[in-house]
Amino acid sequence: MTQMNSSRPLRFVTLLGSLRRNSYHYAVARSLAELAPEGVTIDALGSVADIPHYDADVQAEAFPPAVLEMAERIRSADGVIIVTPEYNYSVPGALKNALDWLSRTTPAPFAGKPVAIQTASPGAIGGARAQYHLRQVMVFLDGDVLNKPEIMIGNVSSKIDAEAQKITDESTKALIAQQLAALAAMARR
Amino acid sequence: MTQMNSSRPLRFVTLLGSLRRNSYHYAVARSLAELAPEGVTIDALGSVADIPHYDADVQAEAFPPAVLEMAERIRSADGVIIVTPEYNYSVPGALKNALDWLSRTTPAPFAGKPVAIQTASPGAIGGARAQYHLRQVMVFLDGDVLNKPEIMIGNVSSKIDAEAQKITDESTKALIAQQLAALAAMARR
Amino acid sequence: MTQMNSSRPLRFVTLLGSLRRNSYHYAVARSLAELAPEGVTIDALGSVADIPHYDADVQAEAFPPAVLEMAERIRSADGVIIVTPEYNYSVPGALKNALDWLSRTTPAPFAGKPVAIQTASPGAIGGARAQYHLRQVMVFLDGDVLNKPEIMIGNVSSKIDAEAQKITDESTKALIAQQLAALAAMARR
Amino acid sequence: MTQMNSSRPLRFVTLLGSLRRNSYHYAVARSLAELAPEGVTIDALGSVADIPHYDADVQAEAFPPAVLEMAERIRSADGVIIVTPEYNYSVPGALKNALDWLSRTTPAPFAGKPVAIQTASPGAIGGARAQYHLRQVMVFLDGDVLNKPEIMIGNVSSKIDAEAQKITDESTKALIAQQLAALAAMARR
Repeated sequence: MTQMNSSRPLRFVTLLGSLRRNSYHYAVARSLAELAPEGVTIDALGSVADIPHYDADVQAEAFPPAVLEMAERIRSADGVIIVTPEYNYSVPGALKNALDWLSRTTPAPFAGKPVAIQTASPGAIGGARAQYHLRQVMVFLDGDVLNKPEIMIGNVSSKIDAEAQKITDESTKALIAQQLAALAAMARR
Repeated sequence: MTQMNSSRPLRFVTLLGSLRRNSYHYAVARSLAELAPEGVTIDALGSVADIPHYDADVQAEAFPPAVLEMAERIRSADGVIIVTPEYNYSVPGALKNALDWLSRTTPAPFAGKPVAIQTASPGAIGGARAQYHLRQVMVFLDGDVLNKPEIMIGNVSSKIDAEAQKITDESTKALIAQQLAALAAMARR
Repeated sequence: MTQMNSSRPLRFVTLLGSLRRNSYHYAVARSLAELAPEGVTIDALGSVADIPHYDADVQAEAFPPAVLEMAERIRSADGVIIVTPEYNYSVPGALKNALDWLSRTTPAPFAGKPVAIQTASPGAIGGARAQYHLRQVMVFLDGDVLNKPEIMIGNVSSKIDAEAQKITDESTKALIAQQLAALAAMARR
Repeated sequence: MTQMNSSRPLRFVTLLGSLRRNSYHYAVARSLAELAPEGVTIDALGSVADIPHYDADVQAEAFPPAVLEMAERIRSADGVIIVTPEYNYSVPGALKNALDWLSRTTPAPFAGKPVAIQTASPGAIGGARAQYHLRQVMVFLDGDVLNKPEIMIGNVSSKIDAEAQKITDESTKALIAQQLAALAAMARR
């Protein structure tokens, strides 16, 4: 690994799993840029809300433009950060639906792509259950999902100010910064 | 268990995980009525295509009518049969999205409800991976998911005639009939 | 359900997933008797430590006596409570090994048997990851695993006094009592 | 990546999940050397049979020598190939137990280590369910598990001659060769 390589500028994109305005997850996604290591920029992908339900008959006609654009932006990014709530012990349907469409595009947008997962929930468990389902999905999508550190923000209302759209808990911020640094190291490998 | 109870007429409903017309899964769902034991009728729920992406802000205004109707039909049914493809090693997003909405309605439509799962796929594994994710979701929804027999129809093109919308493989039909009988026994318990 | 039925005396057995003396999990298992509803007695199964590694060649000769005894005690019980740590995001090997042996005995000891799961861990997540793996195992073993309430005791050192072998946290005790009542209701169904 | 790097000799080790002599899985593990790409040697780790049940009290005294030796051999290898049956829809207890011990040794033997998984089973599904549990375990162990190709050998009796201890199915051999090449590429990255 050369010096040049280790300081290569990186562009990550965020994929948000919830639709509501001013969600905790949106606050997390918005906070990533300032927690990222030097040389890393972070942009938001389009909303999963804009992607219709996957339907093979629709695909046979044409891919929705929002799918093609999201796929292209993932392909050209150096890594993807999925920030999502857990719904019913698994991945939100709307997020999974976006992945279902993306998986049909070629070249496979997630293949070999560094991926980090961040979940948050009101309860103690912080969305852990959704993370392992998402990891199983990523095996098929051939994403390169970071092992550690895992970001599972439990008791989210005490750590994030949704109105101000800010993470208030310092140890949560530190752990996220650590994950972003690990993702950058993976992307520069 | 009294004689009356064991012959009580039952109404099951099917929840279909794919949107395309004339899918293998639709063929399976349509075939259930003729494979059901005596005294069991089987009707289709509305399409998951008609349920918008879950959005807490939308929910705060009003539940979509398609959600409320589906929830009510599940509540009044004696059991639910989920027939679905596996997408990307998990539950199709559109199906999961319907469950995400349904989970917010009260009383909880799946609570204590007998549930059977049927998957089918082109490959050998028959959708098994989606089934265990769905089972984990059902823990939260408090559904009473039948353990056995599991219906995972692999190599589906050799067992189902999608054009004729018929199951052609006799052992698949026999196994489905066995599952429906087990679901009826569970519902009459 | 008759009055007689609803007050039928029940015998539950506990299956402990850890071997160390005076573990938090042993403290939980020992506390169950006093948290159980009236009419329910709770006894410990033998230790998973006494069951050798599963080996089909050994099975072909003879089942280890400890396996046969554990299987018989499960068969004659009204329900099983599995109390276990999570090791490496899954079920402890020694516990899984006991289940591997038990699954080979006939009649299937867990078939139709009410089962409750209790995990505890030093971290926030309380062993949740092990629970869903155990639930998947129980699909094959045909156990009837209680959905709710789930007992995942996080930050265990603040809730259990391992030296005194007592649960000190009142809300943990209340939740366990609630689970045992739910398991009793399931067993009397 | 330099030419030198791409031809660097590699040593992989196999970790076998079953204990019986002449199992299908042993046949697979023995066949790997001849299916490996040039420059790759493959050796067997010790048997999981020689590792006692994990017990924190035993660990407090001393690690069993078989654990320390296995850990050291993993650390010094370029990759690990886990060849295992699926028991009861999950990882065999004896294999998981070995991982439970290994996880307590330092430095973490699997951290950053390329890992490939191979399962085989009599049924159609080929052990897929065990693979995803193993992958979840590997998140904690920080192993770098290869995504593709996945080796799940279904209907194993038609593809492997257990008596001759040989894989007879050519497409199975080809897929395994492809996986070993992918693991080598990952190890040389």
